[in-house]
Amino acid sequence: MTSPHTPPVGPADATRVPRYAGDSTFARLPRLTDVPDADVLIWGVPFDSGVSYRPGARFGPAHVRQGSRLLRPYHPALDVEPFAVGQVADAGDAGVNPFDLDAAITAIEDAARTLSGTRRRLITIGGDHTIALPLLRVQHERHGPVAVLHFDAHLDTWDTYFGAPYTHGTPFRRASEEGLIDAAHSAHVGLRGPLYSRLDLDESERLGFTAVHARDFARQPIDDVIGRVRARLGDRPVYVSIDIDVLDPAYAPGTGTPEAGGLSSRELLEVLRGLDGLHLVGADVVEVAPAYDHAEITGIAAAHVTYDLLALLQRTGR
Amino acid sequence: MTSPHTPPVGPADATRVPRYAGDSTFARLPRLTDVPDADVLIWGVPFDSGVSYRPGARFGPAHVRQGSRLLRPYHPALDVEPFAVGQVADAGDAGVNPFDLDAAITAIEDAARTLSGTRRRLITIGGDHTIALPLLRVQHERHGPVAVLHFDAHLDTWDTYFGAPYTHGTPFRRASEEGLIDAAHSAHVGLRGPLYSRLDLDESERLGFTAVHARDFARQPIDDVIGRVRARLGDRPVYVSIDIDVLDPAYAPGTGTPEAGGLSSRELLEVLRGLDGLHLVGADVVEVAPAYDHAEITGIAAAHVTYDLLALLQRTGR
Amino acid sequence: MTSPHTPPVGPADATRVPRYAGDSTFARLPRLTDVPDADVLIWGVPFDSGVSYRPGARFGPAHVRQGSRLLRPYHPALDVEPFAVGQVADAGDAGVNPFDLDAAITAIEDAARTLSGTRRRLITIGGDHTIALPLLRVQHERHGPVAVLHFDAHLDTWDTYFGAPYTHGTPFRRASEEGLIDAAHSAHVGLRGPLYSRLDLDESERLGFTAVHARDFARQPIDDVIGRVRARLGDRPVYVSIDIDVLDPAYAPGTGTPEAGGLSSRELLEVLRGLDGLHLVGADVVEVAPAYDHAEITGIAAAHVTYDLLALLQRTGR
Amino acid sequence: MTSPHTPPVGPADATRVPRYAGDSTFARLPRLTDVPDADVLIWGVPFDSGVSYRPGARFGPAHVRQGSRLLRPYHPALDVEPFAVGQVADAGDAGVNPFDLDAAITAIEDAARTLSGTRRRLITIGGDHTIALPLLRVQHERHGPVAVLHFDAHLDTWDTYFGAPYTHGTPFRRASEEGLIDAAHSAHVGLRGPLYSRLDLDESERLGFTAVHARDFARQPIDDVIGRVRARLGDRPVYVSIDIDVLDPAYAPGTGTPEAGGLSSRELLEVLRGLDGLHLVGADVVEVAPAYDHAEITGIAAAHVTYDLLALLQRTGR
Amino acid sequence: MTSPHTPPVGPADATRVPRYAGDSTFARLPRLTDVPDADVLIWGVPFDSGVSYRPGARFGPAHVRQGSRLLRPYHPALDVEPFAVGQVADAGDAGVNPFDLDAAITAIEDAARTLSGTRRRLITIGGDHTIALPLLRVQHERHGPVAVLHFDAHLDTWDTYFGAPYTHGTPFRRASEEGLIDAAHSAHVGLRGPLYSRLDLDESERLGFTAVHARDFARQPIDDVIGRVRARLGDRPVYVSIDIDVLDPAYAPGTGTPEAGGLSSRELLEVLRGLDGLHLVGADVVEVAPAYDHAEITGIAAAHVTYDLLALLQRTGR
Amino acid sequence: MTSPHTPPVGPADATRVPRYAGDSTFARLPRLTDVPDADVLIWGVPFDSGVSYRPGARFGPAHVRQGSRLLRPYHPALDVEPFAVGQVADAGDAGVNPFDLDAAITAIEDAARTLSGTRRRLITIGGDHTIALPLLRVQHERHGPVAVLHFDAHLDTWDTYFGAPYTHGTPFRRASEEGLIDAAHSAHVGLRGPLYSRLDLDESERLGFTAVHARDFARQPIDDVIGRVRARLGDRPVYVSIDIDVLDPAYAPGTGTPEAGGLSSRELLEVLRGLDGLHLVGADVVEVAPAYDHAEITGIAAAHVTYDLLALLQRTGR
Repeated sequence: MTSPHTPPVGPADATRVPRYAGDSTFARLPRLTDVPDADVLIWGVPFDSGVSYRPGARFGPAHVRQGSRLLRPYHPALDVEPFAVGQVADAGDAGVNPFDLDAAITAIEDAARTLSGTRRRLITIGGDHTIALPLLRVQHERHGPVAVLHFDAHLDTWDTYFGAPYTHGTPFRRASEEGLIDAAHSAHVGLRGPLYSRLDLDESERLGFTAVHARDFARQPIDDVIGRVRARLGDRPVYVSIDIDVLDPAYAPGTGTPEAGGLSSRELLEVLRGLDGLHLVGADVVEVAPAYDHAEITGIAAAHVTYDLLALLQRTGR
Repeated sequence: MTSPHTPPVGPADATRVPRYAGDSTFARLPRLTDVPDADVLIWGVPFDSGVSYRPGARFGPAHVRQGSRLLRPYHPALDVEPFAVGQVADAGDAGVNPFDLDAAITAIEDAARTLSGTRRRLITIGGDHTIALPLLRVQHERHGPVAVLHFDAHLDTWDTYFGAPYTHGTPFRRASEEGLIDAAHSAHVGLRGPLYSRLDLDESERLGFTAVHARDFARQPIDDVIGRVRARLGDRPVYVSIDIDVLDPAYAPGTGTPEAGGLSSRELLEVLRGLDGLHLVGADVVEVAPAYDHAEITGIAAAHVTYDLLALLQRTGR
Repeated sequence: MTSPHTPPVGPADATRVPRYAGDSTFARLPRLTDVPDADVLIWGVPFDSGVSYRPGARFGPAHVRQGSRLLRPYHPALDVEPFAVGQVADAGDAGVNPFDLDAAITAIEDAARTLSGTRRRLITIGGDHTIALPLLRVQHERHGPVAVLHFDAHLDTWDTYFGAPYTHGTPFRRASEEGLIDAAHSAHVGLRGPLYSRLDLDESERLGFTAVHARDFARQPIDDVIGRVRARLGDRPVYVSIDIDVLDPAYAPGTGTPEAGGLSSRELLEVLRGLDGLHLVGADVVEVAPAYDHAEITGIAAAHVTYDLLALLQRTGR
Repeated sequence: MTSPHTPPVGPADATRVPRYAGDSTFARLPRLTDVPDADVLIWGVPFDSGVSYRPGARFGPAHVRQGSRLLRPYHPALDVEPFAVGQVADAGDAGVNPFDLDAAITAIEDAARTLSGTRRRLITIGGDHTIALPLLRVQHERHGPVAVLHFDAHLDTWDTYFGAPYTHGTPFRRASEEGLIDAAHSAHVGLRGPLYSRLDLDESERLGFTAVHARDFARQPIDDVIGRVRARLGDRPVYVSIDIDVLDPAYAPGTGTPEAGGLSSRELLEVLRGLDGLHLVGADVVEVAPAYDHAEITGIAAAHVTYDLLALLQRTGR
Repeated sequence: MTSPHTPPVGPADATRVPRYAGDSTFARLPRLTDVPDADVLIWGVPFDSGVSYRPGARFGPAHVRQGSRLLRPYHPALDVEPFAVGQVADAGDAGVNPFDLDAAITAIEDAARTLSGTRRRLITIGGDHTIALPLLRVQHERHGPVAVLHFDAHLDTWDTYFGAPYTHGTPFRRASEEGLIDAAHSAHVGLRGPLYSRLDLDESERLGFTAVHARDFARQPIDDVIGRVRARLGDRPVYVSIDIDVLDPAYAPGTGTPEAGGLSSRELLEVLRGLDGLHLVGADVVEVAPAYDHAEITGIAAAHVTYDLLALLQRTGR
Repeated sequence: MTSPHTPPVGPADATRVPRYAGDSTFARLPRLTDVPDADVLIWGVPFDSGVSYRPGARFGPAHVRQGSRLLRPYHPALDVEPFAVGQVADAGDAGVNPFDLDAAITAIEDAARTLSGTRRRLITIGGDHTIALPLLRVQHERHGPVAVLHFDAHLDTWDTYFGAPYTHGTPFRRASEEGLIDAAHSAHVGLRGPLYSRLDLDESERLGFTAVHARDFARQPIDDVIGRVRARLGDRPVYVSIDIDVLDPAYAPGTGTPEAGGLSSRELLEVLRGLDGLHLVGADVVEVAPAYDHAEITGIAAAHVTYDLLALLQRTGR
């Protein structure tokens, strides 16, 4: 806890400042600079120079914050008040060079390390999926190889694209090669759509990921899916990386590489809630591209997902 | 029946006036002023001064009517021709003061009472959820306390907001306090999203509502959900109040306080059809905010929901 | 196979030309004029003069092609590389008279016959559903009566509209009358919404179609639905006609006569994959109206559906 | 005047029914069936089967009516109360066959003749420009050849398209051939964009139209443009036909064949006001395609244009 | 100057934090709480309960701030660095009760008074036009009656609406009645659209406003318009109130009561720049309703207008 | 001419293939691979990794081609048939690495050089403004320093951004430094919006550009503006570079860094037509970002601009 004596500073009071007004931090939480310290930080990495199709995730952090204005303090499904258990703060956005992928990755890594300090836990709002690599490097420094629970329509374990080793299609291959992930305990959830070749899935497995396909949700009860995921993650430190395109385009039109046949937001939220009790150490929510969103539905889905991740972290942290 | 001798006047003939043409009444039905009398009235209450976040439901009635242009006369799932069983008419819109909440509530109550007369049943298209309170007052005058079946992402049993007792977040607390609802037979369906506190659900239960959460739909067969609802409602007079945000934002982007993880339109329609045989006495469909809709999908969903409510009323009425 | 010696020409190489660049053929495949011959053709019929409500499907072929840019070469669920098994090519668009329905139907029939030649199989992207009639005529010439698997919210077996026998609401009645369909082995999937009368379903059955309603998906496991469909189709030559409005408006807002309560894209794709092993002879995907789409979600769903149809054809063809 | 004794029935009272509520007639005027008779009728012809590019103008009449809700009773620039000078009513929509161009043209002609009666004047809201031909036929019956003032980006004097003589690109050639227009006193205003050939303008002139190009507005003071138009029209009976694409796409995105470089809405309204004192006998406003509109800006522009036409008619009629 | 010794704190450095990242204050300026004091404050009043048609301006302040992210520090037309001349800060949003118009007006007045202090100047971003009344009350306390330069399509000098004296259509009548405005030196600019009656303009003049109509811009050189405005304002303290609907809907679709025939953004900016040298004391920019905006064009126009107002204030203040 | 004997191949015949159908080349022209050779090439450079704010111009070439479908063969204002004077072909898109700015610039330069050959003239559709630098390098190889006529809201002569020398804000500084431009004969047209400092304009002038500001269009007759531009360009070889953001956001919402107060499309087209007779050697149209466009209005404006550039080139080339 930030302090045994003073309660955490919570979001702005909606009975004095309406939810459409006031500060634009996540859930209208205090800024990191406005509190003595924080247990959990939510921050943005507005960076999308690693995308292969529709760009625009650089506007993702602001959009998810906007979608978070209606969040209230008590999570009934997980029975936790995530803003009250420990101090949560919004740490703002990283300032990242959009013109140099290597420099950007280094800057994100440095910023994540600084923000993490010795004990803070981070939830990062992207930005494109490239950013998962530097984030995992920092997790690795504290925890060693982490079990990665990767929600995505895509494997993101491809090798290079136009010769570039660091893009939004490659972070988990690089992370595996760098030894950042626990290859016996990681998983993809929500895979679908065509692949480049029969070998893609084999290779992904070789890199450490078991696969829960989106179509599995059409046949397996949700608790069976949760059971598979929990069995895979075990009691390892778990890092959750959520590409919003794991949702069907109906639920998340505002993203860069949409694939039909995805999860509903209810399915995604239920799987997340099914992680309760595991050892969650950090998370990211990426690939929200507001220019393609409508009525903020993608932003709202991502904000709810972020809130559930926060609730899990706060239950873990108690 | 309006008359034992003449059949009801139905919608405009689509083989003479295409569905994109002609009058803009609900389902292109006759206006109340164009028929001798009517058994069921569909009318609009374009009022949204009670909203706490996105306004715009004042344009809801016109939008739902626009979404109803494709409705045809036979309902296969309920095996009824709702426009033929008795006269259905569109009673137009209430003229409601947007600048004075108290005056508005009184005006809605008066208009509902006048339209109801001694035997007409009403389906009201909102407008924001504030309007449920005056509508329930008029139901109470005829039926005594009614079992309220409330579809919504939110409880709407909060107390005050900015000191205002009558807003779209409070109608069911006020109705409970006024003794309008049957506290042993009312229910929320579709609840989800964060709450203000652990006590919100307890208090809602104390006010008379049992809760079917949106996440229950992820695990229970639809007929079990229906069974729970029917058991709760029993043989009481039932008033159905549907906040369109009970649907997931993917299905209903055009609303004011969207929450991820909601129902599909198919789930909502199936629960409604599962009410067949109960004693339905009236209904409303609220919180359609067209400025946030796309391709009329929210309006079409609301129009289908209204049509199913009408079919239920007409089966009840036979 | 086009040739035992040379492998088929595949889509443009995404590692040299990014997916947002280059030719706008389906999946960036070669044009028919750029290859010696082809086994399967994908072509467009930009025609929407048969619509009764929202027009705009004339822009459908271009939109589905745009939505196909992210398709990759390997289909994991069906374990096939559909572009590699035999030559697939984009045959461009038919030039169809928008002002004369009879002339248009003849032109579509002639174009389909010419493109089909003696052995090519066609996947046609509409355009409105009127085009199914001339397409079935050409199928009939090669196969005799075909089992029609018709995905749609609507029956499309109505008789006339404004006296016109050939519109997007009538193709399957005309086809049945002309003896083009196998009346013992055809089926609708995804029906929902109000009908004109109690007799509509009886009449549709008399014309040869059994019905799988959208609401059946709320209660039956997907594999049971698939089983019903397979039992109906048997070992007959199967023609698949997919009106994109079989999807719920949340998944396919970009269409002309949307009805709430439809299928998810995952459900549709799973039923299609369940057809593996049947004798598929051709298919169409119709009623994509881009002016009502958002973020290309309808176009992407239709592109995935088309890809699955192609994969099925290529597995059949092996 | 409809009657020397009773004042005309005006629009709904905005102090009792807010402008977003109530009936959806033009400017919330009474329906023709609700008043004894009317001097001027505003009616819709929801028909777009004559379009060559983007369809959707069938939804135009409803959209322009929606855009007219804010119109108030006094026109300051023309110093007239157009709803008070004589009875104005909304005559609803024509029921027009969308599948048969010839039948449609006949039906529009018949409807216009019936509505006109012996002395009523009509303002027609389209629909595509095909409808100008039957409307001019009816004008001709009363007035003989009329001076046509045609606002449009395009000439609409082409001959045939796909062999069809009656489309939205040909009404004024047909009208000229039929002797409906006064070839010495007609004019196009707002022409721009590429043509098919050098001869198009010559031929248009031969058919009776002088041309004011959109680019003339970049160099000539507006009153000089008005002077040219007035000189051309002289004291002849004038029919005004306004294709909303005369406006630049910035002002009227919701149309079927947009061309850059057009008029502003202010320029169009000023030219119309410059017609005061001429002998206006009828008018149409066509080619509003709502599916391409945004925030109703095209509908609002068309509603204002319709209101100005009405004001001109009412000043003429005094 | 805030201090003779330290230079003002400017916007975030775009070479370290890209413009799409970082804080969401106006122009990414510091918050008032982050600087010792400020000469000019930009703040938001998210309130729209006074609107008569489309609501949504409660989201205006956030939207204008978003549209201000590209603003740079030097204004070439006015040759001033508005962030460097004196400290400019963003004072956040007022917390205003959306359910009680009287309470809201009092709260806005109190907040404006507190923020103004003894010498700060305010630029207020609305919110609907109701807010001009309390803002003028506070101006009056410091300056006595002020010359009001009111840019708007509408007079906003109507009396009551639904019996309500305080709405977005009445602020300048109330202000005139309260003696807040200098009746010999105030002006409307940009008027257009129909009025309620011939008397509206007379009455507005009686209340103190001369009128520059939007159509005047079609005939008068911009510098003549500016000359008229300057002659009217004289050397009085000037308060500028800009309803964004003074712009044509093409330039500002995102507003509540749009009227065709308006100003271009260039015309509005030029008139503002023409005010240089006058004694500007404060300003507001109101009626930006983001739900109706597209691609932020209304927000960007409003941000530029706000920036020009700021530049004028800073030149005045030197 | 490509050949003295055979006429150029023109666009697809719209009387056989409707304009919404068929190939998606610019104006439905033949591809370069479908004709023996060409005099003028239109090609796309889908690249946007140099943008500092909203990305998405990578989808620009496809969008401008879509907007060009309505272009017809005769340009009345310039009295030329641009497709008939010499062969015009669409050369498709460059395949450009999105992850490496330096590699991309080299690839664009190489592609432009190859396509240009010894005598072909190029019109390039971007893509962001970064691409002007490699295009100017290739122009310089043939013509030496060229007079650059640069239409843009921005100077694009900044130095570096995040340390990157090659971005969309710097091409003309780099080009000037490399000696590619004729510093006595180049000009910006359409400048507006705030700058970084008083020195920006001086520096731009030092680099070779005189400035025509957007606000000059508010006071100078268009022919005076044209005169200033012609006087500056003289008889030098002229390269025209058009950032679509030179248009006001009302006319071109679909762009990356919009600024209020810009040109109308009519003003831009008139200035272009005013260049007739000058020695035009090539051109580009950049910064069309379709994700922010509406109803293709930006794409249509850009297509018309491209068509006018082509007409100028073809008149020059005769």
